Amino acid sequence: MSILDIAPVEFKDGNLLILDQTLLPGEERYIEVKTEEDIWDAIKNLRVRGAPAIGVAAAYGVYVSVRNIDEKDFDDFKERFLAVKKYIESARPTAVNLFWALGRMEKKLLEAREKPLEEIKRSLLAEAEKIRDEDEACCLAMGEHGLSLLRPGMGILTHCNAGTIATAKYGTCLSPVYLGHERGYNFKVFADETRPLLQGARLTAWELHKAGVDVTLICDNMASIVMKNGWVDAVVVGCDRMARNGDGANKIGTSGVAILAKEYGIPFYMFVPRSTIDLSTPTGNEIYIEQRNGEEIYKMWYNKDMAPAGVKTYNPAFDVTASKYITAVVTEKGIVYPPYERNLQKVFEE
Amino acid sequence: MSILDIAPVEFKDGNLLILDQTLLPGEERYIEVKTEEDIWDAIKNLRVRGAPAIGVAAAYGVYVSVRNIDEKDFDDFKERFLAVKKYIESARPTAVNLFWALGRMEKKLLEAREKPLEEIKRSLLAEAEKIRDEDEACCLAMGEHGLSLLRPGMGILTHCNAGTIATAKYGTCLSPVYLGHERGYNFKVFADETRPLLQGARLTAWELHKAGVDVTLICDNMASIVMKNGWVDAVVVGCDRMARNGDGANKIGTSGVAILAKEYGIPFYMFVPRSTIDLSTPTGNEIYIEQRNGEEIYKMWYNKDMAPAGVKTYNPAFDVTASKYITAVVTEKGIVYPPYERNLQKVFEE
Repeated sequence: MSILDIAPVEFKDGNLLILDQTLLPGEERYIEVKTEEDIWDAIKNLRVRGAPAIGVAAAYGVYVSVRNIDEKDFDDFKERFLAVKKYIESARPTAVNLFWALGRMEKKLLEAREKPLEEIKRSLLAEAEKIRDEDEACCLAMGEHGLSLLRPGMGILTHCNAGTIATAKYGTCLSPVYLGHERGYNFKVFADETRPLLQGARLTAWELHKAGVDVTLICDNMASIVMKNGWVDAVVVGCDRMARNGDGANKIGTSGVAILAKEYGIPFYMFVPRSTIDLSTPTGNEIYIEQRNGEEIYKMWYNKDMAPAGVKTYNPAFDVTASKYITAVVTEKGIVYPPYERNLQKVFEE
Repeated sequence: MSILDIAPVEFKDGNLLILDQTLLPGEERYIEVKTEEDIWDAIKNLRVRGAPAIGVAAAYGVYVSVRNIDEKDFDDFKERFLAVKKYIESARPTAVNLFWALGRMEKKLLEAREKPLEEIKRSLLAEAEKIRDEDEACCLAMGEHGLSLLRPGMGILTHCNAGTIATAKYGTCLSPVYLGHERGYNFKVFADETRPLLQGARLTAWELHKAGVDVTLICDNMASIVMKNGWVDAVVVGCDRMARNGDGANKIGTSGVAILAKEYGIPFYMFVPRSTIDLSTPTGNEIYIEQRNGEEIYKMWYNKDMAPAGVKTYNPAFDVTASKYITAVVTEKGIVYPPYERNLQKVFEE
């Protein structure tokens, strides 16, 4: 099958369908989003996750939530729109792409204020489709740039999920894997399971396996032996936020993988769309690291408690990979090499 | 409480009691071993695990299995003893300490062949107690040597379980932690959960927490951020087999921790009783790495399957930490520093 069949957000024949990622890998079910409550639930409960995918889902979601509102007066319509927008934003208040995508939808609404209501609604749908298409194009561009760093037959290790179901399509760091797969590159991918939430086992292994890519699931602590065995020629990972100096925050454990890669002489590539590069943050030290509930570590997936009652835990959601461990940063505008302090800024110049 | 209360094998008032480690951390239950079937089950089903603890359990186990045999003729008794021994050995055919301890028991039996049956049985019990006492003394000696490398208030990271319940008492790499704890050192320990079998979460966190040691449970992939935060002053781990050149095989993931420690400038200490140093193995490359069933990764502990059906896995039980990452090897005879090729042999000279 083609990976085109497993986009996380689909708008078909007027219906908004979202792949319920909480059911993966056991069940592949699309839910239909018809109301603001539906989209709120889908985002809140992580049925759709991954920053770009959340943005796309929110844009379509606000459209389907307001498309049946029949206010003759623009200001009345706008008021209803803003109430829906605010409600959807409350689903995940820390998701930057959620606010960014809904902000674009609001801007489009205001631009169309002089138009008839039906045309305004068409503009909103068009903007949601544009957000989706732009993200797909961004992922494809990152894929092509990334693929230029890879060779047929390579072993590739990845951590967490920055794949097709985290974006509009193709993914960030998995985009070159899919493009190479379509071109017969025969990559051999190792997917870290990515504790505690197991995105690697549940999502990355699932989407690669489904797409027919040769994927082997390992525990996070097996990355060292897999590299030592000589099975890994490149590491590819996504990024949640990159500072101006090239320090990149990503899923917990990424920094350890980067250090191992350096020790074993394996290139480490971080895939970072420009929207994820934050030039106003000088270094990784200024990036806030979310702390999560320890029950994720010893309780949530298990048949029984896996640690003694009352034991302390430390459960950071992210860590920062220092720029010195990052061989290259792959953006939709091209590949950036050190020194990042100087070179990252260039991808913002046209 | 004192850690003296949580030895994995106890012989009290003629009763052999084994802590059922399969029930940890949820339940702390000692089972009574009365027959060869009981000890076979305890070893086979990992109710007792950890090489030294298995040896101690087997020695006592063969004693309680034969103590009620009433054969007047020594050769008849010996025949019954050897049948029991062979049966117990079949519980875990790859456990070196199992064969070693039972071999000592057989040797003791043969030495006592001229004595009355009751005295032979007393000799067997005395030998089991000697095996236990020797292991405790070995652990204590490693603890004292190891403690000389540590300072009060240090942060200490460990991987897997080489603690009191893996040995007669005190453990190997946790022995200095307990000794320091008794002397008010106020260590702050980080326990890697140690996927896939979670010995760190289920066993190490349990025994340290129970002993009142300040312990924080983390996922394996959090070792890097914990080190980067400056919270780790030393890493202590056990060892399953050390080659002549100082390469040490230990639980999967150990080599990654060692590389991180080196990168962050943190000393990495491997605790290796002389019985675990195999001078006949030149390097780690010659150490066989057991491969285990992938269901351990995505099925055995979970509420539901955690990976797509049919996905490939790689599940090595151990990895080899290259000697260049090992700051020092702690044995019961003292601390060994590089070059290991030369210095490891010295601990065998009297």
